[in-house]
Amino acid sequence: MFEKNQLTVGRYLFNCLNSEGISEIFGVPGDYNFTLLDNLEKDERINFVGCRNELNAGYAADAYARIKGLSVMITTFGVGELNACNAIAGAYSEYVPIVHIVGAPKTMVQMEHRKMHHTLMNGDYSVYENIYKNITAYTAVITKDNAQIEIPTAIKIAKEMKRPVYLVIAIDVVDQPVTKREINLLKPQTNQNSLQLALDNIKQVINRAQKPVLLPDIMVSRYNLQSVVESLADKMDIPVATMMAGKGSFNESHKNYIGLYAGRWGSLEVKDFVEGCDCILAVGPIWSDYNTGSFSAQLNPVNIIEIQPNYVKVGMSLYENVLMEDLLNELVKIVEKKSVPIPNIKRIYNENNNINGNDQITSVYYYPKLQNFIKENDIVIVESGSLPLGMAEVRLPKSVTYICQYNWGSIGYATPAAFGACVADRNRRIVLFTGDGSIHLTAQELSSIIYNGCKPVIFLINNKYYTIEAYLNAPKTTEYNNIPVWDFQKLIEAFGGNAYTARVNTNEELDKAIEEIEIQGKDKMCFIEINADKMDVPEIVHNVHTMIEEMEKQKMN
Amino acid sequence: MFEKNQLTVGRYLFNCLNSEGISEIFGVPGDYNFTLLDNLEKDERINFVGCRNELNAGYAADAYARIKGLSVMITTFGVGELNACNAIAGAYSEYVPIVHIVGAPKTMVQMEHRKMHHTLMNGDYSVYENIYKNITAYTAVITKDNAQIEIPTAIKIAKEMKRPVYLVIAIDVVDQPVTKREINLLKPQTNQNSLQLALDNIKQVINRAQKPVLLPDIMVSRYNLQSVVESLADKMDIPVATMMAGKGSFNESHKNYIGLYAGRWGSLEVKDFVEGCDCILAVGPIWSDYNTGSFSAQLNPVNIIEIQPNYVKVGMSLYENVLMEDLLNELVKIVEKKSVPIPNIKRIYNENNNINGNDQITSVYYYPKLQNFIKENDIVIVESGSLPLGMAEVRLPKSVTYICQYNWGSIGYATPAAFGACVADRNRRIVLFTGDGSIHLTAQELSSIIYNGCKPVIFLINNKYYTIEAYLNAPKTTEYNNIPVWDFQKLIEAFGGNAYTARVNTNEELDKAIEEIEIQGKDKMCFIEINADKMDVPEIVHNVHTMIEEMEKQKMN
Repeated sequence: MFEKNQLTVGRYLFNCLNSEGISEIFGVPGDYNFTLLDNLEKDERINFVGCRNELNAGYAADAYARIKGLSVMITTFGVGELNACNAIAGAYSEYVPIVHIVGAPKTMVQMEHRKMHHTLMNGDYSVYENIYKNITAYTAVITKDNAQIEIPTAIKIAKEMKRPVYLVIAIDVVDQPVTKREINLLKPQTNQNSLQLALDNIKQVINRAQKPVLLPDIMVSRYNLQSVVESLADKMDIPVATMMAGKGSFNESHKNYIGLYAGRWGSLEVKDFVEGCDCILAVGPIWSDYNTGSFSAQLNPVNIIEIQPNYVKVGMSLYENVLMEDLLNELVKIVEKKSVPIPNIKRIYNENNNINGNDQITSVYYYPKLQNFIKENDIVIVESGSLPLGMAEVRLPKSVTYICQYNWGSIGYATPAAFGACVADRNRRIVLFTGDGSIHLTAQELSSIIYNGCKPVIFLINNKYYTIEAYLNAPKTTEYNNIPVWDFQKLIEAFGGNAYTARVNTNEELDKAIEEIEIQGKDKMCFIEINADKMDVPEIVHNVHTMIEEMEKQKMN
Repeated sequence: MFEKNQLTVGRYLFNCLNSEGISEIFGVPGDYNFTLLDNLEKDERINFVGCRNELNAGYAADAYARIKGLSVMITTFGVGELNACNAIAGAYSEYVPIVHIVGAPKTMVQMEHRKMHHTLMNGDYSVYENIYKNITAYTAVITKDNAQIEIPTAIKIAKEMKRPVYLVIAIDVVDQPVTKREINLLKPQTNQNSLQLALDNIKQVINRAQKPVLLPDIMVSRYNLQSVVESLADKMDIPVATMMAGKGSFNESHKNYIGLYAGRWGSLEVKDFVEGCDCILAVGPIWSDYNTGSFSAQLNPVNIIEIQPNYVKVGMSLYENVLMEDLLNELVKIVEKKSVPIPNIKRIYNENNNINGNDQITSVYYYPKLQNFIKENDIVIVESGSLPLGMAEVRLPKSVTYICQYNWGSIGYATPAAFGACVADRNRRIVLFTGDGSIHLTAQELSSIIYNGCKPVIFLINNKYYTIEAYLNAPKTTEYNNIPVWDFQKLIEAFGGNAYTARVNTNEELDKAIEEIEIQGKDKMCFIEINADKMDVPEIVHNVHTMIEEMEKQKMN
């Protein structure tokens, strides 16, 4: 037996996580993670938050990390951890730091290659770690001897790279005393010479520019650099646009904000303006299909200053080992006021007073309404499907946290993510926008929301169809996009929910539901089902479909 | 453009699958599998069966393959396929042949390493195949040039090895004409010399044996060799026991059947008998923890004849390249009647007439009742948890297909598996046994069951707790095993179900519910919730817990 007061691996692990601000850990119990959870149950600093399955736990952890900067999930060997693959790969694709901890069979059992349950029955105990190497920034098998090296290293990598990491701990290792080890974890440093050269080049380009534009993207929010970017916009006083994944990286109520730039998918006014600029100051962009309107964006690389987490490109010149934070902090000091006129581009979602309140509700009506519904400081979670496209053009109030998978785009993400957001911050309002096709995948996490007394506002666009799929495919009507129709009010009752629920069929029913939310939403969860037509989508989805049809036609010729 | 009547890759693929008896393919639509599904929709031979998520599709495919010998699932790139990792790894662990087909981005997009949605944003298009290499017997990227080689090869490997295989097809490849290729797929052959040597040795051992026992296990049902094994039992007239994973490999109503052998977990009478035998004719065993009562089985390797799919071991002598089917067919010809007396071992689940009908229902009452409920030719699906242990000792009527993950043990498996079974055979009765902790993970597949008009009988043991976890852990009571309580009747209503539902609290309420099932079960799905105490488990689970406690005590000393 070990001495009573020795620091164990489990205790050390939870010490490290707690010192990173972790107060909740998501997961699902399983017999190989009992010692982890037994230790956690005794730990007064961190609560275990059980989820309905591991995929959902991963999604919840993803949203928690986007809000708090880091999150942790515990699963069991094989069956548990593999359920979470999609969520972890998604966190990798989306730059979200999650520490995924897996409880494994006893060390001796592994060494003997015993055919234990939850294994492939081939004696191979490294196979799941090998899988996770593909979708994480770091993996390690924790022992008492390496714990004080591997655990802080993994956490450091997750935080610095904004990527998920993976730790596997055998059930007997958790209660072993850690071997004392010293590790000197160096912070990444900017090369001052590169920084200076980059700044000189950037300054010249900006000075020369007649029509500069600021284009903050995903890495700004991931590295939490919104305020320095806003200072840059203030000081230079130039127009600002964002791409889809950049939503949440810039205060959209800022006077310089002109809207969403999405190539041919989005507003052509914004497109023409941005593509007419001679200097694009792109902060942390990903040139992905969703960000570029399926590569219809026409930006001249020579005109782009691209500031990335650890390098900067000015036209064709590359400066390595320059940290984004350092560069932005220096840049904001040296830039001068450009006072470029801000084009007056009309907002996409203007309330249309000519719409009849008794008509069946359509996206033309509800997007402007939902835009007005979102308040300062809300946490907004948007499901994949047509919503990320429609919501991309909503003008958000300041200090809204906007959570959506523009890179990964996994349907089913948003409901568990909303649960994770509720757990991450009990004081802010959580507003979830989802669709019926998507919620089917992970609906049981509504049960965790209810069980934990969370009170999000949920809008479910119910098209009774995989509507986005119909628009992403050239032949629009197919049988395989049909889905079962659920009674969501009964579903919430089945999960024991005491919610304000409403079924909205007409435009004015949405107005009434929104009034009720303002009253009832203080005490309970709200669930508003918007029954839109099967093929009703916002304008931007029609733009996407038109491009797909054109491409199909080109192929035919 | 290609010529109209040329055979395309998609058409060729579905030809191959149809010729294997595939009439349904499970999956979830996604934009990278549209061409696959568009082709499938036009194909009158095979129906696409949409599932609520890809994990569930994988589980459904798993059960379908156990019933029909092979199954197919279609998912989309990244987000879709990774959701199914657990199901596919489970199929690997459990020897179930599933062809997992993934629709991928266009070939040119992949070659250009474009940052498409559902990728890791690193331009790497091989990462998911690399993941699947770990949990499948074969993977291939299909092109028009290799389709006629890779598709039949993958199917052959799945069928011969009883393992999942993985094919990825870019969306543009599906409609390309296949390049004609010839491939000569050789069937594996038994080495006749090895076979003869093995038979000679086996014959000697059997002739010498005073107390032989037949022990058929998992590979008998996977290779569909139940009838030759039963002939062997008939001809030799010796006692037959099965291990857990062997359930379904032998007709348990056979006069020579003595019951479950599970080391110290199971009946000590069976244990003493089997371990007292001097010749154990083990057909297709896996010496796993569940099969051996956590390695408490005390079988002398010298006394074991172990017949595996492609080799046989007689004591310490190994004969390679001997196919199980060939060996059994020859062995049954040469064995002689041993006429060993069959021990009269009492059945575990005898109906106890002293139980008061008004008492709260317990496993002592319901296991015998459920044993009697199961009829010849039923397909029985058993969820992980305490049920696989309790159900292992149910004596099944003949021709029952018994589906349970004794190796993989993934909670949530059984409900989607029951859906898969319903799709695989519309004429047999499907009986699902599940628990509340497990059904939470995959409950939405009840919706697919209802949507597709399937009418299984579902018994849900509702302990309102992860009960098995409490018994597998030495400190029994923990907070983390608490789970939300659901109203399952409302859940079924939410999914649009017209079911016979009952909540059983007392013993006699179960009798009444069973009477109702016999009447109403012909027209509708039945869902019986058995409200047992939080800690109520069958005797065998107490045995497991006692062993765990003893091991803990040993560790303390």
